[in-house]
Amino acid sequence: MKKIAIITSGGDAPGLNAAIRAVVRTANYYNIQVIGFKRGLKGLIENEFIPLDARVVSGFLDKGGTFLLTARENRFYQYEYRKIAIENLKKHNIDALFVIGGNGSFQAANLLVKEFNFPVIGIPKTIDNDTYGTDYTIGFDTCINTNVEAIEKIKDTTMSHERIFIVEVMGRKSGFIALETGIATGADVILIPEYPFPLHVIVDTIIEGKKRGKNFFVIILAEGVAKAQELAPLVERELSKHGNFGEVRYSVLGYIQRGGSPSAYDRLIASRFGVFAVEHYIKGNINFMVALEKGEILAKPLNVSFGKIKKPDLKQFEVANILST
Amino acid sequence: MKKIAIITSGGDAPGLNAAIRAVVRTANYYNIQVIGFKRGLKGLIENEFIPLDARVVSGFLDKGGTFLLTARENRFYQYEYRKIAIENLKKHNIDALFVIGGNGSFQAANLLVKEFNFPVIGIPKTIDNDTYGTDYTIGFDTCINTNVEAIEKIKDTTMSHERIFIVEVMGRKSGFIALETGIATGADVILIPEYPFPLHVIVDTIIEGKKRGKNFFVIILAEGVAKAQELAPLVERELSKHGNFGEVRYSVLGYIQRGGSPSAYDRLIASRFGVFAVEHYIKGNINFMVALEKGEILAKPLNVSFGKIKKPDLKQFEVANILST
Amino acid sequence: MKKIAIITSGGDAPGLNAAIRAVVRTANYYNIQVIGFKRGLKGLIENEFIPLDARVVSGFLDKGGTFLLTARENRFYQYEYRKIAIENLKKHNIDALFVIGGNGSFQAANLLVKEFNFPVIGIPKTIDNDTYGTDYTIGFDTCINTNVEAIEKIKDTTMSHERIFIVEVMGRKSGFIALETGIATGADVILIPEYPFPLHVIVDTIIEGKKRGKNFFVIILAEGVAKAQELAPLVERELSKHGNFGEVRYSVLGYIQRGGSPSAYDRLIASRFGVFAVEHYIKGNINFMVALEKGEILAKPLNVSFGKIKKPDLKQFEVANILST
Amino acid sequence: MKKIAIITSGGDAPGLNAAIRAVVRTANYYNIQVIGFKRGLKGLIENEFIPLDARVVSGFLDKGGTFLLTARENRFYQYEYRKIAIENLKKHNIDALFVIGGNGSFQAANLLVKEFNFPVIGIPKTIDNDTYGTDYTIGFDTCINTNVEAIEKIKDTTMSHERIFIVEVMGRKSGFIALETGIATGADVILIPEYPFPLHVIVDTIIEGKKRGKNFFVIILAEGVAKAQELAPLVERELSKHGNFGEVRYSVLGYIQRGGSPSAYDRLIASRFGVFAVEHYIKGNINFMVALEKGEILAKPLNVSFGKIKKPDLKQFEVANILST
Repeated sequence: MKKIAIITSGGDAPGLNAAIRAVVRTANYYNIQVIGFKRGLKGLIENEFIPLDARVVSGFLDKGGTFLLTARENRFYQYEYRKIAIENLKKHNIDALFVIGGNGSFQAANLLVKEFNFPVIGIPKTIDNDTYGTDYTIGFDTCINTNVEAIEKIKDTTMSHERIFIVEVMGRKSGFIALETGIATGADVILIPEYPFPLHVIVDTIIEGKKRGKNFFVIILAEGVAKAQELAPLVERELSKHGNFGEVRYSVLGYIQRGGSPSAYDRLIASRFGVFAVEHYIKGNINFMVALEKGEILAKPLNVSFGKIKKPDLKQFEVANILST
Repeated sequence: MKKIAIITSGGDAPGLNAAIRAVVRTANYYNIQVIGFKRGLKGLIENEFIPLDARVVSGFLDKGGTFLLTARENRFYQYEYRKIAIENLKKHNIDALFVIGGNGSFQAANLLVKEFNFPVIGIPKTIDNDTYGTDYTIGFDTCINTNVEAIEKIKDTTMSHERIFIVEVMGRKSGFIALETGIATGADVILIPEYPFPLHVIVDTIIEGKKRGKNFFVIILAEGVAKAQELAPLVERELSKHGNFGEVRYSVLGYIQRGGSPSAYDRLIASRFGVFAVEHYIKGNINFMVALEKGEILAKPLNVSFGKIKKPDLKQFEVANILST
Repeated sequence: MKKIAIITSGGDAPGLNAAIRAVVRTANYYNIQVIGFKRGLKGLIENEFIPLDARVVSGFLDKGGTFLLTARENRFYQYEYRKIAIENLKKHNIDALFVIGGNGSFQAANLLVKEFNFPVIGIPKTIDNDTYGTDYTIGFDTCINTNVEAIEKIKDTTMSHERIFIVEVMGRKSGFIALETGIATGADVILIPEYPFPLHVIVDTIIEGKKRGKNFFVIILAEGVAKAQELAPLVERELSKHGNFGEVRYSVLGYIQRGGSPSAYDRLIASRFGVFAVEHYIKGNINFMVALEKGEILAKPLNVSFGKIKKPDLKQFEVANILST
Repeated sequence: MKKIAIITSGGDAPGLNAAIRAVVRTANYYNIQVIGFKRGLKGLIENEFIPLDARVVSGFLDKGGTFLLTARENRFYQYEYRKIAIENLKKHNIDALFVIGGNGSFQAANLLVKEFNFPVIGIPKTIDNDTYGTDYTIGFDTCINTNVEAIEKIKDTTMSHERIFIVEVMGRKSGFIALETGIATGADVILIPEYPFPLHVIVDTIIEGKKRGKNFFVIILAEGVAKAQELAPLVERELSKHGNFGEVRYSVLGYIQRGGSPSAYDRLIASRFGVFAVEHYIKGNINFMVALEKGEILAKPLNVSFGKIKKPDLKQFEVANILST
């Protein structure tokens, strides 16, 4: 009988528990045993684990976060600790390691492939949706829905006070969150790291909008472009040169974007990713990453995403622009 | 300057307002005028309309329902009334009619193409997601999320009372809603019109589940398979032959499935469908339906869906089965 | 060291877990041990229990349902089974039994007071808010919020189709749920068991409303007045005598009203009820029910509610009437 | 026929539209005309107004913000501008001014009473719930529910990463929001302006909690006590002296707290406040503020709250303390 291990690694995202549940139940269905190491790579090093079966993962489909916990673990980047990890995996007679993680976690786990020829399977998750090689990563849809709900509330007060409002969302190097959040909330300006606008474009958009009858404005700002705290006074000062536009307020959505009960889509995709990962492994495949491509779930080499950058479609930007008129 | 008309037709779905807004703003962006006829085909016959522009559609992106209203209109199936409709369209110098609707509405509007050579563009919506030719129809994602939220509440009480519970969801001929709702809520049994189970399979699943340690059970039932009101006593009686399984309760989710503020995805897809529809029309295309295929938005002949049936992927069913263990 | 037992009894309601948590943590804080019997009175008879402490109840504040489970148990109404229950309580050296329940559960538990002089403390819960002697029962606020969210969705589709819609809510003998749901959703007619309207009043209200420019109507119906399934065709037929009012649709909200993560208010009141119950007990009081009266939490004799009926304030009805104009 | 004017003044809060609707419909019901001045006191000065009737306020019960808009207006504190305001009120033959606002707005409007003997009625709103003389102000319940939902999401990620997390909520001088938010989310520490803790108490609470088996901690911080941005590194540094407690993260909930569709309770209380205000005025009363006291709605002198400070009940604090064990 085969035996696999599973970890959740890196920043958490809604849908991790759904993915764990899917891997465990699928494995059990095909008579494969599963254990979960706690706190990602840290658990591999410290041999902290729990046996998992169909009943243990019951009741987690709808829960945010990860009951296997997650943590940063820099020691894994030292060979001696990876050796300890491998020894722990072997002690448990593990045949393959399933990593629910992002780019960074896949690269770390890939060291086990390269150095010890240990089989690794990756399931992509990150609210940022910026993992190259897959059109979707677990957690993104929930994040956008959370942002939409938060910004609808902010729009109520922005509209009542006829203000200009900057909402800072997550996305250090990537604009997927800001872009989809912006289109889904009808934002007037969307600022993302891949295509940032200069200040005067923001200001012109507001001035033009006011002429066309708009009374309030919402700017969605990816954190990688600027801090809302710093951008707000700049926009306010620049606008004040062109008339009375009032104060520019801001809000940083922050950590609410990482949590919450997963959306229907994230539950479905996490479930399907998990089932696919185990079934593809059973067919004899290893060292692959599950991916969604053109609406289909398939496998790609684990290293497909390494060193690559995934960018939002410029066409989406046009859509945002047309719809904010 | 060109001028188009837009209607929402058939049963309503979350995202209709987002689609109207997208069509209107895109048309305006390209200097095309828009009017909206009220109550779908009825408004065409009765010449009830409102002029639409970028400001009028402001504030509707997040609203459920359709501010253009919708209604059944059987008179349209008589030639004389279609002639009146065409005359009204010509009176307003309309160059093309944009119909946000389902299969039935597209077939009705297609009569204007066939009989009067009048250009029609279709944008698919229905919470059922059963329009052939497109992987997605506006409203489906919101519906599934609504169901998931409702069923999580029902699961609280089902679990506390250790009951068996049947939840009836929409879907007269189609199981998309039941299937995705079932996977996203971890249902124990999913009953859809395309692949209904006999009673003994339901009963066996519950008996087996109880043996494996399950204390409560949720059955998702598409309305096209049976009425929950009738199925519940049947399941209860059959189970009572095998021990004490307690009462079988049920709930019909009903009309909450059609309403609500659209989910982020429905806002995005409705927006993108609307922009695409107008831009594709501007390029000289007519009599097409917007479709999502393999993750891409494209155009198909308006009649592509006529007489065709779209079925859920059997593989999804296997996923549901594995994950309910 | 003292030791108490706790059960949740009767139909479940959001906030039960919050109340259990509060009782357990307060007891622990004052060095009192706690065990929980499972499935209400059934657990007392069958001696099914779990030891509870501050850590065990962690993570339940926000969860709907009751992790102690609940069940109907008719055997408790036979003396011999109550004797078994008392023996079980004594076996565990229990000093007092805390019952989170409604009127019926308090009456049942009171038999232990009368027959065995066993101390009982009641904490009132029921989504119906119909327990005499307290202005509020745990679960009511969540229920109303659930109904409001559901009905807002239904209003989207009702408005789009310009329909008349009947929403059946819980309340067999009591109209609190229907009344507050109706005011909070701006219902046109509210039908409750305490003050039901004859059919012609419903019909007249709709006819008058239509004259004043209303295009759609929502009727909130407490289940104790009539079945929506039966009322809808009656209203439709009667209206048809006065013109074309279209179809009358209906929906039964059903079990979603019992579940869900408790609202902020239910978490607070359940927490405060639990703390008060234990602190009041520590001061030497027994056989009381916690109550909210005029904004204050206090104790009343356990039997205060027996045989009494709590009715909604007629003034509320006037408010509903004025606001539906 | 009488005629009244209504304004919403000061920071917005969920339930303002519900209150406007209630005032307008009740006035209409009793044959009183209503106009609304836009942007609070600014509209009085600039004579910007819209006539209001039962149909105009339709569809606003569930909407956040205020469709009458609100704004700061410092000119009102100059006598000459108040004279203009009074002239505008007289020009429209207004018999009384209904102000939905907080303490500051009531004090401003009271100048019209004192200087011009103009009747003013106050309806208290503020998410802070800190208006002296009333147990409740419109918007508070929605705010707490918004915070609870946001913090549940934050707890998912805090728990998964086993972190210490500071959530900054609104409340410059008042701790009502922080206190109720804290109890409703099971916070480990609650910091409010009325009873701030020194740093070492925060640190000790975390150290003690960790000993008792807690793996993550949530601190609710009212903005009036400190900035989360500044407190987080202080707590982190102090904790680092006592072992490895990891990073202390923070989030500022910000403006989402002011918006959103009002909760059921806010719709009800805003509705009842509005009905009461008009009915009490009709009975011949003026210059009063509507208030909730011990569960009852009543009137108090408009100036009852001036110069007074409302403080949270210390007992609530004990509850929070006991329940965070």
